Formats: sequence, structure tokens, C-alpha cells
Amino acid sequence: MTRSEKITTWFKELQDEICEGLKQLDSLAVIHEDIWDRAEGGGGRTRAITGKGVIEKGGVNFSAVHGPVPEAIQKSFGIGATHFYATGVSIVLHPINPWVPIIHMNVRYFETGADEKYPNGLYWFGGGIDLTPHYADESSGKFIHNSLKDVCDAAYTDYYTRFKKWADDYFFIKHRDETRGVGGIFYDHLNESGESLSFDELWQFQQSVGQAFVPIYKYYAELNKNKSYTEAEKAWQMIRRGRYAEFNLVWDRGTKFGLDTGGRTESILMSLPPQANWEYNHQPTEGTPEAETLKWLKKGINWVG
Amino acid sequence: MTRSEKITTWFKELQDEICEGLKQLDSLAVIHEDIWDRAEGGGGRTRAITGKGVIEKGGVNFSAVHGPVPEAIQKSFGIGATHFYATGVSIVLHPINPWVPIIHMNVRYFETGADEKYPNGLYWFGGGIDLTPHYADESSGKFIHNSLKDVCDAAYTDYYTRFKKWADDYFFIKHRDETRGVGGIFYDHLNESGESLSFDELWQFQQSVGQAFVPIYKYYAELNKNKSYTEAEKAWQMIRRGRYAEFNLVWDRGTKFGLDTGGRTESILMSLPPQANWEYNHQPTEGTPEAETLKWLKKGINWVG
Repeated sequence: MTRSEKITTWFKELQDEICEGLKQLDSLAVIHEDIWDRAEGGGGRTRAITGKGVIEKGGVNFSAVHGPVPEAIQKSFGIGATHFYATGVSIVLHPINPWVPIIHMNVRYFETGADEKYPNGLYWFGGGIDLTPHYADESSGKFIHNSLKDVCDAAYTDYYTRFKKWADDYFFIKHRDETRGVGGIFYDHLNESGESLSFDELWQFQQSVGQAFVPIYKYYAELNKNKSYTEAEKAWQMIRRGRYAEFNLVWDRGTKFGLDTGGRTESILMSLPPQANWEYNHQPTEGTPEAETLKWLKKGINWVG
Repeated sequence: MTRSEKITTWFKELQDEICEGLKQLDSLAVIHEDIWDRAEGGGGRTRAITGKGVIEKGGVNFSAVHGPVPEAIQKSFGIGATHFYATGVSIVLHPINPWVPIIHMNVRYFETGADEKYPNGLYWFGGGIDLTPHYADESSGKFIHNSLKDVCDAAYTDYYTRFKKWADDYFFIKHRDETRGVGGIFYDHLNESGESLSFDELWQFQQSVGQAFVPIYKYYAELNKNKSYTEAEKAWQMIRRGRYAEFNLVWDRGTKFGLDTGGRTESILMSLPPQANWEYNHQPTEGTPEAETLKWLKKGINWVG
């Protein structure tokens, strides 16, 4: 098997494992599968989730696409190769209960054929996991950040610090001056020429990130899925989902790139919430859990201290 | 009075007139006013609307801002001037009743100080009115297009054809391959050097567009505000509002420019609906009014034939 075949097979199995894990923690989740083809090459296996248990709407999507290298990527990286291959698993889950956070994960692998500059071709890994609680307090980010720190520390000494900051910077809603949530890790363009790790070690890291997803989500879901909530708390969830939609549609480079380059719209936009609300100039009252939440939507918070 | 003072005064009065007109057709509309200042110069008068009559959420916003020319505009137009002035009125209304359309209007004026290339400075007008019915059929675009054709024809012979096409192209949700609604007119960068009209004639045209707004909205609101609707029709409205949010956040250059350059977020995003829903791969059943609607969300439809 080539590298890309090995990775593709593993990602596909990861999708299965994660769906299995989600079914175990949410027996009412209904998973609808769509297999799709991409005109230029490859395709995907989208699994859309709806339910009345823990998860209201979400997706666990696998894709493996190939074809001519998109012009934007050719330019950014000075790639002369005519062919690329990209595969990954992408997840967003919107829960019913406002006390359960929204979670997002992506693990991806990209490679190009050989060219003059890169006679062995070029490859990289990218991905991460991050959490968006509708309600945040001092403890909200502790479990995910500690879990991701363990995963990072097992791979390389500076990964957690670098990738935690990368997530803070990436998942930032500039026009609101707030982070999307409590962050996590985000990384891109990892390959052995830029890192201290070999291909095998990077691939090992990537697998560990993928495997960290279910335990992290399970922790937050179990902790809060039975917590009661009021109509006002549900209304706040809708406002926060509005911010989530704003980030994904205005700032998320992955979404933008996908929509610009003719990606499968329904798979890309599975990240959007089932419902989002907007109120003009909504400001939570000082001293409420809603106002408290906004204090934790900042860059640079140390959740592992 | 300078040109910009005259235009500013008129736009401010237009905001008043339109608010007055809306109160007359929707006695339950509540208008909340915020006066705001812009750090670099100027400010605005935002009027946010909420209500339980015709309009559920919307805004009629006036602003007049000035300061250093944004870099993006300097580059696009080769402007050397260090100072700009921009004023306009911007409106979006989201109705409660799914049979009443969403409407959008913008009229704006932009000018820069003198530089080597433009010793008299540079100015332009931009704007338009367009309609987004949640339900569309063969008649949906007739009234607005005929009204706007009259306004355009009074100004210049090719305006309606040009600006109608411009709206079709501008209000296009590329990733859905559908127009945002049934269109209307859109124009930008109108000045006497590019057009057959003088400054005074262009200004006359701009005023006519502003004055066309209330009669157009009144027509559609009166026609449909008392029409009964089902829960399923309300659900479809939420899906269409989701598309509206997608257009505004992903494709609308005005929104993007405003958010990128530190505009007042709450005034820019007053265009977003009170509630929007997303369902994975939502497809209306063949033969229903929802499926019929999608047939009319296309470029190039002749509504004035």
C-alpha cells in the first residue's frame, strides 16, 4: 500500500469507529449516509446525524478526493505538480442541551505528485479538535486541553504550546473580538521537512488526534446531557450558534476554500447549526452565566495550569 | 452646502421618511435608535426594528463616515487621496409572515479628496433594491421590477437592463447555484465620467431609487401580510433565511468589506434574520410551492415582459 492508501483506509475506519462511539453515547442518534463522487476525481462518504437524544444535528464526514492541484494552492506553495490527493475526516456536532458544548474535529492529509521543486512530491498533515461551549466557565476547557496536551506531548515537546496558540488564532471571530469557543489545537502543513518528526511519527500523532475525539466528547456529553435547562438558556444557545455560523461562513478558510472550489456544499455546510438566532446588539446582563461565558472567549487562556 | 453635505442631509431625511412609511404600514413595529461614532471619523444612526406585526426584525440604517482611504479601495482604484467620505442608507427587513418577502435597499455615495490622478477628487454612487420572497412564482418579481424599470427609464435608457443584470450577478449564491431572490437592481461606481449622465442627473436617479422603496415594500406587505400560513411554510421560511444568511456572510462584498475594515458589526449584521435553520440536504418535494420557488431563483428571468 502507498502512504495515501494506508492513510485513506485508516481515516475510513476512523469514521466508522467514531460513528460507533457516538451511537454508544447517544442511542437516539440517527445516522444518514450519502456516498458521493467528485467530477474531477474521488468522492466521499458523508454521515449526517440528526436526533432527539444528545446530538440534534451534526456530521461525521470522510472524503478522499484527487485531481488537478487547485490554483490557489499551486500559488501559495509554488507547487508545479499537476495532481493532488487529499483525504480526511471532518466532524461537527450540535447538541440539543445548551450545557453540552459544540465540538469540531478535522484530520486531513494532502499530497501532490512530483515536480522539479519537489522531486518526491510534497505532503502534509493538518487538523485539530476544538470545543465551543454555549456556557463557559473556568473549568470548561480543562478536560479537552489536558487531553490534547497528552496527545501532543507524546509526539513532540512544543506541539501543545504551538498548536494551542494556532487554534486560538484560527478560531477567532475578528468582527466580534471573541474566540469561537475555548479552543483546543489546530495545525497545518506538518511534514518532516518543517518538523523534528519523521513521516511515521507525524502519522502516529495524526492517528492519536483522531482517537482522542470520542473520549473528549464523551466526557462533556456525559457530564451535561441530563442537566436541565430553561427557555432563556436555550435562547442563549441560539445566539451562540449564530456566532458559530458567523465564524464558519465569514472566517473559516476551510469552508471558504471548499465553497470557492466547487466542493460538495451539503458536506461542507453540515457544520451549520440546526437553528441559529440573531438579535440586534444582544448583550448579556452583567453577573449572569452568559456574561461569564464571554470572559472565557479570549485568546491566550491557560487551561492546563 | 458641498455635494457631500447636501447628500448626507437628504439621506438622513430619507431614513426618517422610510421609518415613517414603515410605521404606517406596520403599526406594531418598534424602532430602537442607536447613535454611534466611528473612531477614525463620522458615525451613524442605526434604527433597529423588532415587532409582532409585519416586520419581525430589520433595520433602517444611516451612516456618514470619513477618514483615511481604506487600502483595498486605494489599490482597486489607484486613488492617491488620503481622505474619503462615504454616506448611505441601508435597509433589510425580515417579515414574520412567510408569504411576505424579505427586502433589501441600499443607496450610498462615496468621494475622495483631490490627488494627482483625480485633481477634483473622485466620487461615485452605488445602491439598489432587491427582493427575496420565501415563496416565489411567476408573479413574484413583476411589481418590483416594473417599479424599478420606471425609475431607471426616467434616468437613462439602458439602466434597467444593466442594473437588473448586475443584481442577478451580484445576489448569486454560487455554492447553491441559485440567486438570493428575484433580484431587482444593483449598481456601483456611477459617476459622470463613466455614465452619460451628469452629477445632478445621477443624484436625481439616486433619490428616485430611495423614494421607490416604501411603495414597493408596501405593495408586497399589504398583499400578503394577512395570508394564513402553516408550520411547514414557517419551516421553509427558516430554510430560506438560512440561505439569506449564507449569501450575506459568504458572498456579500459590502458585508465582508465592513467586517474586514472594522465597521460597526451590529449595524452591518442587522441584515441577518431573527432565526435561520439548516437541515442537511433539504430538498423540497417535486410539485410543491417550495420546489416551484427554486425554479424562480435563477439569473436572467424577464419579469417585465
